[in-house]
Amino acid sequence: MAIELYATAGSVEKDLRNHVAIVVDALRATSVMITATQNGVRSIIPVAEVEEAVEMARQLGNQRVLLCGERQAKPIPEFHLSNSPLEYTPERVSGRVIVMTTTNGTRAMLRARDAKMVFAGGFLNAAAVAQAARENGENIAILCAGTAGKFSLDDILCSGAIISRLLDIDGKQYMDDLARTALTLYDSYRGDLRASLAGCTHVEHLRALGMEEDIRFCLQEDVMDAVPYYVDGVLRDYTA
Amino acid sequence: MAIELYATAGSVEKDLRNHVAIVVDALRATSVMITATQNGVRSIIPVAEVEEAVEMARQLGNQRVLLCGERQAKPIPEFHLSNSPLEYTPERVSGRVIVMTTTNGTRAMLRARDAKMVFAGGFLNAAAVAQAARENGENIAILCAGTAGKFSLDDILCSGAIISRLLDIDGKQYMDDLARTALTLYDSYRGDLRASLAGCTHVEHLRALGMEEDIRFCLQEDVMDAVPYYVDGVLRDYTA
Repeated sequence: MAIELYATAGSVEKDLRNHVAIVVDALRATSVMITATQNGVRSIIPVAEVEEAVEMARQLGNQRVLLCGERQAKPIPEFHLSNSPLEYTPERVSGRVIVMTTTNGTRAMLRARDAKMVFAGGFLNAAAVAQAARENGENIAILCAGTAGKFSLDDILCSGAIISRLLDIDGKQYMDDLARTALTLYDSYRGDLRASLAGCTHVEHLRALGMEEDIRFCLQEDVMDAVPYYVDGVLRDYTA
Repeated sequence: MAIELYATAGSVEKDLRNHVAIVVDALRATSVMITATQNGVRSIIPVAEVEEAVEMARQLGNQRVLLCGERQAKPIPEFHLSNSPLEYTPERVSGRVIVMTTTNGTRAMLRARDAKMVFAGGFLNAAAVAQAARENGENIAILCAGTAGKFSLDDILCSGAIISRLLDIDGKQYMDDLARTALTLYDSYRGDLRASLAGCTHVEHLRALGMEEDIRFCLQEDVMDAVPYYVDGVLRDYTA
């Protein structure tokens, strides 16, 4: 097995057709996708722009559709749900179709779509997404959403968690330098992930907006077994 | 002061006009530039292509010009010197003009040229390049060459060394996530940099080519005070 890690979707130069991709936007887009899937959502349609999301919801045109997402981490006016996973309760999302747009996470998901399989990963489903990826191929590419086109430590630590679960399944693998580094950082910090993220750009932005509970929620490890996978423009549960 | 770190030149999306740039290709291009400058080279002209280097040397057309560089870490046929800093002795380079082409380092240097000042950094001159950068601005961008467009741990550790020297000068600064991470890694590994690079892609490639002595040489910290700076297409010694 070979594991490659990319700090941002924009830094992927290679063709991913022979790779299984795991997209990571731990704070918070992929954590929302995992939570919604765990709580019974029927499907999630990620789109790049707010206008596109509104138009898509209009075309789908029924009461099962929820418009969800954020811009600069803040709720979008007129949308049903923001990018807080705490809002995605079974009562609200079970059986519904979600049209979702987020700043960095959607872009990473769209970049990954040439891969032979695309999964959404987070701390929440680290073991489950590692298992799903491993079942589908030898070459695994983890694509972090990053923050504003840059390396974001929250995503790197989350990738480290997923890599540690991949090693639990199969200890013999090639890792590129960033994958090795992510694993080292995760192993150093796993005792207190929240403290290790103090001072980081994206985390401090969320804290300034009062989203400490979201951070706490998203940093829980292996508490969900849902694995959203992306095919033909839609995310559904791989394990279902 | 603010410090930003980029794992590859290709990942720099912002305008660098208000930044002082430090280019890092520790194994080995910037270490060669530093060593050559320390040993009395008159100027270094970095160019992207082998053909361009040959043409440039032809135009300069005198016996003071040396053609130098590598492709895939190997010497280029007909060139005077390879990319091993051990070859850049005072006897060979003092008073000479060097036309240099390397796989990743030159590309990073060319990407940085919009910055208000551009310096070449390495372990060899970590303290000196930090001092030179700090004298010229508040916003410092460190651009790693990377390896084949990807994050390379050797460059990240070297950036961590330079960041630690910047903090020695001025302890109060904003750092982006990758700058923080590089500093953490450097602080963890500074006792044994060579061991910490075992398994890394670029280092293993050099080891396979028998370049262990080059690696050992390039990992020496603060042994030179030369600081190559890049202006109008040429590198000269800032401290001269």
